[in-house]
Amino acid sequence: MLKFDVHAKDGAARRGTLQTAHGAVQTPAFMPVGTAGTVKAMTPEMVKDTGAEIILGNTYHLMLRPGAERVARLGGLHKFMHWDRPILTDSGGFQVMSLSGLRKITEEGVTFKSHLDGSSHALTPERAMEIQHLLDSNITMVLDECPPFPIERKPAEMSMQLSMRWAKRCREAFVKRDGYGLFGIVQGSVYPELRKQSAEMLREIGFDGYAIGGLAVGEGQALMFEVLDMVMPSMPAERPRYLMGVGTPSDLIGAVLRGVDMFDCVLPTRSGRNAKAYTHQGELNLRNARFAEDTNPVDPQCRCYTCKNFTRAYLHHLFKAGEMLAGMLLTTHNLGFYQQLMQGLRQAIDQGKTMEFAKDFLTGLEKD
Amino acid sequence: MLKFDVHAKDGAARRGTLQTAHGAVQTPAFMPVGTAGTVKAMTPEMVKDTGAEIILGNTYHLMLRPGAERVARLGGLHKFMHWDRPILTDSGGFQVMSLSGLRKITEEGVTFKSHLDGSSHALTPERAMEIQHLLDSNITMVLDECPPFPIERKPAEMSMQLSMRWAKRCREAFVKRDGYGLFGIVQGSVYPELRKQSAEMLREIGFDGYAIGGLAVGEGQALMFEVLDMVMPSMPAERPRYLMGVGTPSDLIGAVLRGVDMFDCVLPTRSGRNAKAYTHQGELNLRNARFAEDTNPVDPQCRCYTCKNFTRAYLHHLFKAGEMLAGMLLTTHNLGFYQQLMQGLRQAIDQGKTMEFAKDFLTGLEKD
Repeated sequence: MLKFDVHAKDGAARRGTLQTAHGAVQTPAFMPVGTAGTVKAMTPEMVKDTGAEIILGNTYHLMLRPGAERVARLGGLHKFMHWDRPILTDSGGFQVMSLSGLRKITEEGVTFKSHLDGSSHALTPERAMEIQHLLDSNITMVLDECPPFPIERKPAEMSMQLSMRWAKRCREAFVKRDGYGLFGIVQGSVYPELRKQSAEMLREIGFDGYAIGGLAVGEGQALMFEVLDMVMPSMPAERPRYLMGVGTPSDLIGAVLRGVDMFDCVLPTRSGRNAKAYTHQGELNLRNARFAEDTNPVDPQCRCYTCKNFTRAYLHHLFKAGEMLAGMLLTTHNLGFYQQLMQGLRQAIDQGKTMEFAKDFLTGLEKD
Repeated sequence: MLKFDVHAKDGAARRGTLQTAHGAVQTPAFMPVGTAGTVKAMTPEMVKDTGAEIILGNTYHLMLRPGAERVARLGGLHKFMHWDRPILTDSGGFQVMSLSGLRKITEEGVTFKSHLDGSSHALTPERAMEIQHLLDSNITMVLDECPPFPIERKPAEMSMQLSMRWAKRCREAFVKRDGYGLFGIVQGSVYPELRKQSAEMLREIGFDGYAIGGLAVGEGQALMFEVLDMVMPSMPAERPRYLMGVGTPSDLIGAVLRGVDMFDCVLPTRSGRNAKAYTHQGELNLRNARFAEDTNPVDPQCRCYTCKNFTRAYLHHLFKAGEMLAGMLLTTHNLGFYQQLMQGLRQAIDQGKTMEFAKDFLTGLEKD
């Protein structure tokens, strides 16, 4: 029950609009990560100013603190965090694997211990749907098992099959509402046959969108693009395609060229707090002494608040002094840079010049 | 060379305007502290939105990092930190006493070791003037010795006398410029005769404004008000009066009633990062579990960005989760609350209702 229109295509790249109960999202879109009910170091207004139309919330973090029922009593995640645009939430599965203590996966679901206080919790497909409903998430993700990389074919297949059975239970448990939707997640690691099977099984169940999971887990860009090349033909063309947890600017460009519509990643926000700037000329570490008297903006080609008003020298000083404003300003820039990249890609697709745009942009990244 | 007009008086309270090269300041005024070239956890636009017309910078911090000469090469402190309104800088003397390692005071000045890296530095009256000139500070403070509290009369007198000799050297070293000025600092601890002597010696030298130093160092509000009562009659009426490092909301009210025009204090910013909220009903600690589902704004009577858009429950969550946005939002509120208090006081003076305003406000603070 999410309207999605593809307005233009350029090769495999697509230009679309996704309609939700909290407004529209122009695709290809990048979603800043708002882990615990806040995009770190940013007010919602600052996030909007970067051009972001949708953010991601983490079910794992929110179910542990402040708790899904509490968020619901407080009016849902939009109201709680003062973000009136669309929100996508992950299912919690990925963080259960990467953050929690002792965990046990059964057919029923996963039990785990909180990384915060060691308390025991259970996540089943049904509970994952309930939590995301309580959060009032516009786009709910199915609970899946996130296998490690690398993984042998046999366990990859078993894991994928389990995720598909969970996907079906999620579909059945999901409460349909206008302007809200449920996305399935294609698994199968790097095995073409498994990926294809997974995509077909999800299509048969029927979802509002289709995500590609299990990538950006250390396999490298070349292999990730290979997997995309093999899996995209099986992904329904009339529905949004979401590449989870990706990635660097060049990852995004390569994936858009292969037909991906949506992305999320902690890189721009996490890097922003760690002095790493994304620019049209590649990455900079603003702690480097060479920036101490550099009066250029972080990225002379950038139009963000930070680049309009502050110098590299000032940000260098703020990082050296351990000031909070350092992370605030560089997160603002990095998110602004990512959104400007997405705007550029959308415009290029509209104009049928996606390859030229990609080539120019990637050439620029090599310059520094 | 700072124009200062007193428009209205109500008892001892004064309503004025201070003109600087970077714009006007309505008094009584509260100056947020921007220690290291940033009001912590705030962009300059966020600081402006609270209503602040002038901020304070710390000479001690800036001379050590990034260095006064560097700030000058980068265009001065206003440009460096993107704050186009007035800036007052302290002389560094207070932090030399409170933060630095081994220090030695002579007639010439003070030598000390940096708290950052142990490097040796010297601060003389002449160097303090030079540094603040390099920073392009609108209001320069004289270098003074800041004696401890309590202190016997004899050492208090010797310290005050040294500060007065330094004040004279500062006046001679200060480069006069239109829209820039130099403030003297009255010392003398809690001894009426010393305070009076100090004020008269400063008046004889002649300054653009007069500060009261050596208070808010543990003497308590009652004794501070006593000192104000004894010293204010000696402070030139035609020039702004600045009470350094003060204070709580009730400190500000009591001091305005006694004729003080300017204040600075780290309380609203530091408390904002530590979950302590100033409100019309007194102080709140937002980490307290009773706020976990409190859907009220931090202060229902407040008009700030934080109170317009977020609940106590959300801020409670942010502090529990250790999110940067917690400090950003509560600093925004606390500074907004302080500025609204100053606006209220200015309006009350204009209307000749300062005592009523003070009484109502102070009664409100007792309610929680």
